[in-house]
Amino acid sequence: MNITELAKNAYNASLSMSELKSSRKNLALKKIVHIIKEKKDDILMANRKDLEIAENENLSKPLLKRLKFDEEKIQAVCSGIDMLIQLDDPVGKILKATELDQDLELYKISCPIGVIGIIFESRPDALVQISTLCLKSGNAVLLKGGKEALHTNKVLAGLITDAGKMAGLPDHWLTLLETREDVKDLLSLHQYVNLIIPRGSNEFVRYIMENTKIPVLGHADGICHVYIDNKTDIDIALKIVIDSKCQYVAVCNALETLLVHAEVAGELLPRLKSLLDEKGVEIRGCEKTRDIINVKPAVEADWGTEYLDTILSIKIVDSLEKAIDHINTYGSGHTDAIVTTSSRNAQKFMQRVDSADVFINCSTRFSDGYRYGLGAEVGISTNKIHARGPVGMEGLIIYKWILLGDGHIVADYAEGRKHFTHKPLDREYLSE
Amino acid sequence: MNITELAKNAYNASLSMSELKSSRKNLALKKIVHIIKEKKDDILMANRKDLEIAENENLSKPLLKRLKFDEEKIQAVCSGIDMLIQLDDPVGKILKATELDQDLELYKISCPIGVIGIIFESRPDALVQISTLCLKSGNAVLLKGGKEALHTNKVLAGLITDAGKMAGLPDHWLTLLETREDVKDLLSLHQYVNLIIPRGSNEFVRYIMENTKIPVLGHADGICHVYIDNKTDIDIALKIVIDSKCQYVAVCNALETLLVHAEVAGELLPRLKSLLDEKGVEIRGCEKTRDIINVKPAVEADWGTEYLDTILSIKIVDSLEKAIDHINTYGSGHTDAIVTTSSRNAQKFMQRVDSADVFINCSTRFSDGYRYGLGAEVGISTNKIHARGPVGMEGLIIYKWILLGDGHIVADYAEGRKHFTHKPLDREYLSE
Repeated sequence: MNITELAKNAYNASLSMSELKSSRKNLALKKIVHIIKEKKDDILMANRKDLEIAENENLSKPLLKRLKFDEEKIQAVCSGIDMLIQLDDPVGKILKATELDQDLELYKISCPIGVIGIIFESRPDALVQISTLCLKSGNAVLLKGGKEALHTNKVLAGLITDAGKMAGLPDHWLTLLETREDVKDLLSLHQYVNLIIPRGSNEFVRYIMENTKIPVLGHADGICHVYIDNKTDIDIALKIVIDSKCQYVAVCNALETLLVHAEVAGELLPRLKSLLDEKGVEIRGCEKTRDIINVKPAVEADWGTEYLDTILSIKIVDSLEKAIDHINTYGSGHTDAIVTTSSRNAQKFMQRVDSADVFINCSTRFSDGYRYGLGAEVGISTNKIHARGPVGMEGLIIYKWILLGDGHIVADYAEGRKHFTHKPLDREYLSE
Repeated sequence: MNITELAKNAYNASLSMSELKSSRKNLALKKIVHIIKEKKDDILMANRKDLEIAENENLSKPLLKRLKFDEEKIQAVCSGIDMLIQLDDPVGKILKATELDQDLELYKISCPIGVIGIIFESRPDALVQISTLCLKSGNAVLLKGGKEALHTNKVLAGLITDAGKMAGLPDHWLTLLETREDVKDLLSLHQYVNLIIPRGSNEFVRYIMENTKIPVLGHADGICHVYIDNKTDIDIALKIVIDSKCQYVAVCNALETLLVHAEVAGELLPRLKSLLDEKGVEIRGCEKTRDIINVKPAVEADWGTEYLDTILSIKIVDSLEKAIDHINTYGSGHTDAIVTTSSRNAQKFMQRVDSADVFINCSTRFSDGYRYGLGAEVGISTNKIHARGPVGMEGLIIYKWILLGDGHIVADYAEGRKHFTHKPLDREYLSE
């Protein structure tokens, strides 16, 4: 079958997925957990095959680490699914109900988006995690994983499909695409695919975003800032900078550029440098920074770079406004924090920093679906429509408008024989 | 100034717009009403100029009608603004509040999207309507109107800008673009423009959608269906079909294709034909339809055509499923209705028809922001993310996450010294 047919099948499956009762979706999730545990050895064997090939091809250490799908990861994805089963069904909720007139009732009801295209690199756990999120939210899914994880992905997709069949899910709700050409084709299928979620490196995500007309949920860069205000507690500032930069350097919510108000730079920077030296973090500073501490110079490109590494760029600014300008100019709209004792400055920062996540006196590393208590994370979005920041299952949900009438026609209202009442209705579910 | 600079100015203005208090925004709206009434003659004179040029250039009658901006339309836009003043401010609402831990509080707060690009044809009232909606929702706006309305648009944009200045709105919150080249440039400015709203013909909207990476809110086609079920009250069915088709033919929510269950076609079609003949509606039917009534044949292209005219295509189907398939294949995801006495069939139609607006036993013509009681209509969207169907001001709104801490760092949680509480908070507004 060619990919257009696969996508068409997925679209048809999505219509049936949208009708599923919560109990059936949860049953399918339980069966997925069961089959993954039961067929653990098949998964581990397939993954060893992928790892062997990858080692022979001299893939990098971090890539091998992401590719590895061991007992621990199996345990982790299974507890993830157990948590997902506990979550409320996001489909079929009445978001708004209005009586337009007697026996003419309008309902805004949550429903799945339809067909979600997931394109991810290396990590096979992403396959399990995102396909189960799509299942719970009633979406069909087209998956394309990295070729280095092909054997593992094939086994996992096969098991999830089998479990779905046992639970009575519609055929074709999940489809694994296998070739690199499939990605290009997938990106052009806006007729059938309603949302693309890419998971992988910045270059990879940027490539996806630049090569499709389908809406993309995600983020390319995470150029996060901490700004140390002139009104600040230096000890707290140091603690937040160290955590934001060092707690885990290779992630999108780690600190990349530190902005320091000129008035506190003299006191803060020497102490910060010795802490960062201990942690092996390289500092690149603006000229004014280099007047205070002996560090490498930062060049223009540093302000727009996501290092994802033990490197920190530092710039001294004269005012809160300059800090906000810098963030809105060079940032990626991901996560930015201020450390201040002034509620007025906190307020201004909060209002004018144009990012998905704006933090006051805490580490940028909190920007995460699990830490936010969302229950499950679809991804982190730097879009400015639909869903922003850490996105839970609500990112896979939209709504439709249902109007229930009894032979009502517009002419009666246009010609003044009838009048709209527009009364809010107190309904949780649609009555039959 | 080139358009990139104009857009950058709009972006900077959007940051200030997002901070405005409701009282200032409402004051600006009042001043706009006042100045439009006060300078009525300037507007009417500019509009006469546009109309004269248009007449000399032999523009079509419907276009001239849309271009006309007379006392009645001035009255209408002013009452629209009066209603907008009464609406709740959509900005700064706490959509969710969670205690992550003691003194670590997460808020999901509604905020403007940023810079909205509005591209519209002919109708100058659209300029007033959409720019005031952007104002109330705290967005900056770049406007590009049709060249045939240039004089009217210039006067209107000038008056709105003056009123905004008097009320203390930031400079550059509204910018009128004037040349056709500006549209192309606008479509490429995804760095500064966050959402495009096109208003005009299908071809126009499709052109916009196909030529930008910026999200577009709107719809190209409105190919709306009514399906007459086998379990149906024929009188009600006839009433709904006539209203859906004839109440106003030139609009996106008018009926274009009627689907009739074979069991009721024999009784329904002859009666329908005589009603439609009276109204001067041309029927194009499938073969089975033509076995019952003497009408022109429908060709494949008819099922995918939005006539916006006194033409109706009719197809006889064997089942509800076939009707749903037809709608999901040829429809545009706008508005589709079923006429049935079976709640089971209504339910199935409601679930499986993949459209923004799905109606049971009422006219497709109800699909409209005013009739839905939304207070104001930004447009009608056939997108499947962000906003769907008639979109009120919520379509111009997104949210940001604010995390208020007191020196909190992630290491404490990662290393087990502290634990998340994830308690919902009962807060309506952020306390300082």
